Amino acid sequence: MTESASALDARAYDLDRAHVFHSWSAQAALKPLVIAGGKGSRVWDHSGRTYLDFSSQMVNTNIGHQHPKVVEAIKRQADTLTTIAPATANLARGEAAERITDVAPVGFNKVFFTNAGADAVENAIRMARLHTGRDKVLSTYRSYHGNTGAAIVATGDPRRFSNEYARGHVHFFGPYLYRTEFWATTPEQEAERALHHLRRVIEAEGPDSIAAILVETVPGTVGVLMPPPGYLPGVRALADEFGIVLILDEVMAGFGRTGEWLALDAYDVVPDLITFAKGSNSGYVPAGGVIISDPVAATFDDRVFPGGLTYSGHPLAMASIVATIEAMNEEGIVDNAATIGSDHIAPGLAALAEKHSVVGEVRGTGVFWALELVADRETREPLPAETMAKVKSELVARNLIPFTAGNRIHVVPPCIITPDEVAEAMSIYDDVLGSL
Amino acid sequence: MTESASALDARAYDLDRAHVFHSWSAQAALKPLVIAGGKGSRVWDHSGRTYLDFSSQMVNTNIGHQHPKVVEAIKRQADTLTTIAPATANLARGEAAERITDVAPVGFNKVFFTNAGADAVENAIRMARLHTGRDKVLSTYRSYHGNTGAAIVATGDPRRFSNEYARGHVHFFGPYLYRTEFWATTPEQEAERALHHLRRVIEAEGPDSIAAILVETVPGTVGVLMPPPGYLPGVRALADEFGIVLILDEVMAGFGRTGEWLALDAYDVVPDLITFAKGSNSGYVPAGGVIISDPVAATFDDRVFPGGLTYSGHPLAMASIVATIEAMNEEGIVDNAATIGSDHIAPGLAALAEKHSVVGEVRGTGVFWALELVADRETREPLPAETMAKVKSELVARNLIPFTAGNRIHVVPPCIITPDEVAEAMSIYDDVLGSL
Ligand SMILES: Cc1ncc(COP(=O)(O)O)c(C=O)c1O
Ligand SMILES: Cc1ncc(COP(=O)(O)O)c(C=O)c1O
Repeated sequence: MTESASALDARAYDLDRAHVFHSWSAQAALKPLVIAGGKGSRVWDHSGRTYLDFSSQMVNTNIGHQHPKVVEAIKRQADTLTTIAPATANLARGEAAERITDVAPVGFNKVFFTNAGADAVENAIRMARLHTGRDKVLSTYRSYHGNTGAAIVATGDPRRFSNEYARGHVHFFGPYLYRTEFWATTPEQEAERALHHLRRVIEAEGPDSIAAILVETVPGTVGVLMPPPGYLPGVRALADEFGIVLILDEVMAGFGRTGEWLALDAYDVVPDLITFAKGSNSGYVPAGGVIISDPVAATFDDRVFPGGLTYSGHPLAMASIVATIEAMNEEGIVDNAATIGSDHIAPGLAALAEKHSVVGEVRGTGVFWALELVADRETREPLPAETMAKVKSELVARNLIPFTAGNRIHVVPPCIITPDEVAEAMSIYDDVLGSL
Repeated sequence: MTESASALDARAYDLDRAHVFHSWSAQAALKPLVIAGGKGSRVWDHSGRTYLDFSSQMVNTNIGHQHPKVVEAIKRQADTLTTIAPATANLARGEAAERITDVAPVGFNKVFFTNAGADAVENAIRMARLHTGRDKVLSTYRSYHGNTGAAIVATGDPRRFSNEYARGHVHFFGPYLYRTEFWATTPEQEAERALHHLRRVIEAEGPDSIAAILVETVPGTVGVLMPPPGYLPGVRALADEFGIVLILDEVMAGFGRTGEWLALDAYDVVPDLITFAKGSNSGYVPAGGVIISDPVAATFDDRVFPGGLTYSGHPLAMASIVATIEAMNEEGIVDNAATIGSDHIAPGLAALAEKHSVVGEVRGTGVFWALELVADRETREPLPAETMAKVKSELVARNLIPFTAGNRIHVVPPCIITPDEVAEAMSIYDDVLGSL
């Protein structure tokens, strides 16, 4: 090592500013944090400044940073075979598919692998269209499904506006009691009215034209919107009534995030297709995919599935999936997410809400929580963007990497987070909320 | 190791058939080859059956299988930091972006990283639309740009038919003298008439509605269609005349495949955006991206770029890009592709054409060649699908992994291929063509 640590930080920063074009941003004013390494719930720069990661980056490092078993599996596979075409059979790929179907409901036996979440959604839509022979896809306004052509238009949040390249996507409102679209006052009423609304949209669009209803089991980036009791079973019933494929997007909610293997496990609902990515291997190697129920899979027994990609079932990614699922099983990581959520995060956030009137609502489960920040508890007016920018920079100044979106702080640490780390984060949140 | 080699092969095969859903296929009748490992230009199964890889898999392992420097770099990065969010600055990412801009023409200083080729194309289209404020994208009927929403509709080949989810995509005919759309008889005439056709399409669609012309520098999957002299500079001139962004898709043609760093280097053309994937790291870790010219990059200095993905600039992928470009430089791998093409593959294929009347045309450069097989040299009627299936299985039976598409064998070994390996492949091709 000939460069000093601070020179390395400077070089990483300068090369980034000179040559790296960033997502979802105007480029000129960016000042990215340098990150050089990490372990568990912490990451650091070259000079040793360390941050507590309460973002799991893009809510993907469910197993924490640099889990030794997953790193080892990647290195072992790297020594054997990094890449091979999708048309071949490869042991790592078969094992990853088997592990993933083990985690899925019964009757899900095949996996189509993609590189990430967006193309998982793309291919689920493709399957639904061909399986039903119909065209339209219904998804919620409050949703994010990825940035590619069809996936971004299936998306409901503002990233969709400038990206409407596709057709046949219809948006409806999902349940969100805190900001109800249905003048509801209880969770039961919100569920019932949201289902009525969905039925009316289906009827008005023409049930025979609708291939799929695509929803995040727990809508994530848009605010960790916990579905009220009865909602998801009701969506399933509507899909059944009208012969529509139900796609549950588990890209963010799946693989431990909610304290369950899949978020759907808590909601008494079985979809036709499940999309996954992030937590399935914590993003150590880009990967995602579609878990396919037997009836949809059978559609393509003798009929060509017209989708594919160079790196479908990439061996390095596959080895990391196998190791991740094994480690999560062996180490009780999903259970930890559940317990830490109910015993530490829930009371911690409740205490913050008690103390700080800027907290409008706390909602979540497992390691998947949102603090909705408001300028006024009565009107529920969202905290303005400038104040949110300050919240974010103050959290970083205190060495916590936050996940903020809109007027919310998402409290989304890795599933391996400890009680002490939760306490540490709560005290930082407390400090920053108090400074507003 | 408790399982015997043949048991491992059986397990890999059985798990695949039970749980892996394959690209571009009807699933029931598939019989995938088991591949367990590889090195250089060869891959093998668990039992030790070895194949000569004249496909580079999906035309991506330009540096060959398991190049030790790239494997080492992946393992080193795996030990440091596998994944980090795109919003951070990371040294591996900055270095990869710098190496890639080094390979690009002057005036290309920024890179937006994606997971693969399709999303590279998606994002290039997005940039072109926002840079021009226009909507339509012109691409050729004979093209493949990836399987996601916008990318698949930009695609011209039959994979588009069942995937037309997007709008604003207009298709035109590119030059292909062997099957000319323009009644041309010389390369010069083909280029001139293809340009006239493109001008007429631009005029008839309305130049002010056209954001981008998207073409593969050398259309690959559709047949290694070498652009005739003058064609690409003529496309550049048309783009300039009408204020249209020119996107060159180098996903397959780039990074050594044609015997140049980028295929465009041989054609006296500088586009506005360049898409890449495959050869940039030989697919050892899923990666791709867009190399952005300064004027297009400047559009997003103060304006938000509305695209992104969880794994943009993934550290493992970035480390593999840096190591790949370094190894290709140090070992003269691009030069090898050029020399092997002109001195060994070209004469070898010419000899096959001389000997076997089933060969209708041979075209290509570097390690990027197609043998067009015909039932009749006079009518140029393509060899029927059943015969092509036989060609494919006979090549595999002789332990050569071929790349076949339509009525063609694509001769697309890694760039590191040796004269002896070329000779070995030529004798296998000779054998199989002789058996028809
Ligand atoms: C629910 C959901 N679906 C899809 C995606 C897209 O995933 P990717 O960014 O890997 O394409 C995301 C990303 O945040 C997501 O949260
Ligand atoms: C020219 C070209 N563009 C884009 C793609 C799509 O790349 P990927 O399969 O990595 O999405 C390909 C794949 O073959 C290609 O050849």
